[in-house]
Amino acid sequence: MPDLSPTKPVIVLVQTQMAVNIGMCARAMLNCGLDELRLVAPRDGWPNTDAIAPSTDAKRVLESAKVYSTVADAVADCHQVYAATARIRHLNTPAVTAAEAAAEMHSATAASEGENRPAILFGPEASGLDNDAMSYADRLLHYPMNPEFTSLNLAQAVLLFSWEWWSTRAGATTSYEQGWEAAPKAELDHYLQRLEDELEKAGFFTNPAKRPNTIRKIRALFSRSNPSSQEVKSLQGIITALNSPRR
Amino acid sequence: MPDLSPTKPVIVLVQTQMAVNIGMCARAMLNCGLDELRLVAPRDGWPNTDAIAPSTDAKRVLESAKVYSTVADAVADCHQVYAATARIRHLNTPAVTAAEAAAEMHSATAASEGENRPAILFGPEASGLDNDAMSYADRLLHYPMNPEFTSLNLAQAVLLFSWEWWSTRAGATTSYEQGWEAAPKAELDHYLQRLEDELEKAGFFTNPAKRPNTIRKIRALFSRSNPSSQEVKSLQGIITALNSPRR
Repeated sequence: MPDLSPTKPVIVLVQTQMAVNIGMCARAMLNCGLDELRLVAPRDGWPNTDAIAPSTDAKRVLESAKVYSTVADAVADCHQVYAATARIRHLNTPAVTAAEAAAEMHSATAASEGENRPAILFGPEASGLDNDAMSYADRLLHYPMNPEFTSLNLAQAVLLFSWEWWSTRAGATTSYEQGWEAAPKAELDHYLQRLEDELEKAGFFTNPAKRPNTIRKIRALFSRSNPSSQEVKSLQGIITALNSPRR
Repeated sequence: MPDLSPTKPVIVLVQTQMAVNIGMCARAMLNCGLDELRLVAPRDGWPNTDAIAPSTDAKRVLESAKVYSTVADAVADCHQVYAATARIRHLNTPAVTAAEAAAEMHSATAASEGENRPAILFGPEASGLDNDAMSYADRLLHYPMNPEFTSLNLAQAVLLFSWEWWSTRAGATTSYEQGWEAAPKAELDHYLQRLEDELEKAGFFTNPAKRPNTIRKIRALFSRSNPSSQEVKSLQGIITALNSPRR
């Protein structure tokens, strides 16, 4: 994996009930370049073979996962702790969106000379994090979902944070190059000249006064599609075929 | 649901293999305020009871889903078509990120007087969209995932697009810099243990029933203040000073 960040966020799953969800979280993490997984008292024990299939090929994230008995132990070497929760009020802990949390982490990493490791706590599937676990957090991490349907599954909550972190990191891909080489404009112009000539012969231009504007409209359509040389050849072939004498 | 947009994107699942995945997609969509689902030739038929449980309470998205036999039919009333794919080269169709696609849709919606309905095609789980389906697209929608682990599951691909659409609609995010370097949490925990011990000795906890909540409130206060190592030393010094025998 490329060196993505001096210190990447640690995903901490607290008292997860289903091992299958731990596997799905590992997959979502690795999709977004995260590979440090910690488990606090997973209900069905660890390691757990149920996690392997849903992790797809993110098995190495599972294999390096560490187990802790308390939240305190799990975050002892971390410098910021975020608690993912559907609640935005808990004691006096500030709430931030996933995008804000990611921005804070990237800022802290950029500003820090040494290690600056954030952790994000995710609670059990049914109930979420309890008050005790949330009191370890610097920030509540809240997803501003559709207010009429806020229930995110665990792996999807992990994915959305991981995605925000991944897609806003320095060097993230924000656009793609055009995947083809456009033809020189002379090729397109040559095609359009021929098209105009053939349309003339076919009696397409019934009103001479409108002809220049019609031509401009057709040219604009093909210009914005920015065709390759191969595509211009196909367009030429279309004229030839349509023009050929019918049996 | 609030009126989110004059015309919301339509999610089109092409030849989906597992109905359970259709249910998970419905849940992810509704989390992000999308509710129009179309199915092109789902392998195991439709309706399918396997989709209900994983949709959680997004059953109404399933109930209103329409089935089509071809991609052409499914997008016939749409104005832009995006094809979600792991490939960024196909014919000469431009590739965009999920964020770019969402931005284009919001712009088109804002600029349009009438309907301006975008559709996003998602292919079968194992193989993704085939060349024929992709040739219907104005744009390829590509997720720039960890290059060493690009395989997104179907519902997670649907979630990431839906989230980008939803969260860019919701407005700008803000962030703030932290002006100090936080201490490792272990230093703070050591201080809080000492404080609790000293408060115990000093008879601070007059009501044992309230003690756990009092401790949580104190811990939450210091967790959100995210003190530096120097500040933790100051806090330790305060206990020492307050504890020292008075002259």
